Amino acid sequence: MRIQEIQKQVDDWIGQWKDGYWSPLSNLARLTEEVGELARAINHLHGDKIKKDGELQGNIAEEIGDIMFVLVAIANSMDIDLEESFQNTLEKYNVRDAKRFEPIIDVEK
Amino acid sequence: MRIQEIQKQVDDWIGQWKDGYWSPLSNLARLTEEVGELARAINHLHGDKIKKDGELQGNIAEEIGDIMFVLVAIANSMDIDLEESFQNTLEKYNVRDAKRFEPIIDVEK
Amino acid sequence: MRIQEIQKQVDDWIGQWKDGYWSPLSNLARLTEEVGELARAINHLHGDKIKKDGELQGNIAEEIGDIMFVLVAIANSMDIDLEESFQNTLEKYNVRDAKRFEPIIDVEK
Amino acid sequence: MRIQEIQKQVDDWIGQWKDGYWSPLSNLARLTEEVGELARAINHLHGDKIKKDGELQGNIAEEIGDIMFVLVAIANSMDIDLEESFQNTLEKYNVRDAKRFEPIIDVEK
Repeated sequence: MRIQEIQKQVDDWIGQWKDGYWSPLSNLARLTEEVGELARAINHLHGDKIKKDGELQGNIAEEIGDIMFVLVAIANSMDIDLEESFQNTLEKYNVRDAKRFEPIIDVEK
Repeated sequence: MRIQEIQKQVDDWIGQWKDGYWSPLSNLARLTEEVGELARAINHLHGDKIKKDGELQGNIAEEIGDIMFVLVAIANSMDIDLEESFQNTLEKYNVRDAKRFEPIIDVEK
Repeated sequence: MRIQEIQKQVDDWIGQWKDGYWSPLSNLARLTEEVGELARAINHLHGDKIKKDGELQGNIAEEIGDIMFVLVAIANSMDIDLEESFQNTLEKYNVRDAKRFEPIIDVEK
Repeated sequence: MRIQEIQKQVDDWIGQWKDGYWSPLSNLARLTEEVGELARAINHLHGDKIKKDGELQGNIAEEIGDIMFVLVAIANSMDIDLEESFQNTLEKYNVRDAKRFEPIIDVEK
């Protein structure tokens, strides 16, 4: 599935409802909420948090899907091309961090 | 109640448990989770999020208490004096933002 | 670009470095940081926050790309198929929220 | 310093400005931003994130003070008594988690 299709699917889903996209600040609050749920799931599996009895195991894959959905909704509501944004980030990292970490192979001269 | 007492109460509470304070990253994940719950509660009352049937009304005051608790735990685990931190922030704002907003009273000459 | 390619590109990028993927809690902290930067950018454009002099306008598209990158890194580090996660979220919303909002078209009897 | 005084100091500070308290969603975005800055600082000191050259060491104590300020602002703007909220959280933990962790002292029979 292409990124554009994902943006289209979210747009179709939201397009069903009368009110359309939420305001930017409301969508951001939703993103904060979903990241919080991922935090709980990751803390249960990889952190020091002891799971409460009866609490379902946080499903990390599910929380990541939920975050993806909100992120796409935010992008859509502001006419942002997610693929382009991602490419720009990748390019930025390639330039900025080119010498930041130690490479796996130290090429000999 | 003084800030120091709050730090002491959290320390006493955590001191009951064998494992003591969580690691900084695990505490941070907990803070992220609690902020996410506040985000949900605020979005329900002040945002565009429609409350699901059967979902209890987010209790904003409760979420704020939970965030306070984790924030104090993080401060304690790193020997940070919360009162001092707060005072430094207030001082920073007084210097940095002294002319940033429009004052209520425009004093005439 | 397909989701799989995005996951591959992030994997290639991280694969260059000796240390590979960060720990789940460290990646989560990075996600929290990037969401915080998006929050600042959105607050500048759509909220009550007054921009400080000399502060560059938050670039929302850039922050969304950065969040996407970390989200993919988290998915990759846990062998999660992002497309599948997204599809599951969409399906969940279609079932759960089918009658949650008021549809655009009120079908006449 | 008492919690009430902290709430008063934030109120005095905000009371200087014509616009007063921000909207709940805008304050929440600010909280998200400040938590993101704490995440960066903690990741630098305790996580896998490599600090960029020239980047100042994140000051965790400072970020905690900044979070405290926004949290108090949110509480104030909604007439929430922070001390009471904190006490309720402490009480909840004492009841809910009374048997959750292994106590330090295993009382002999």
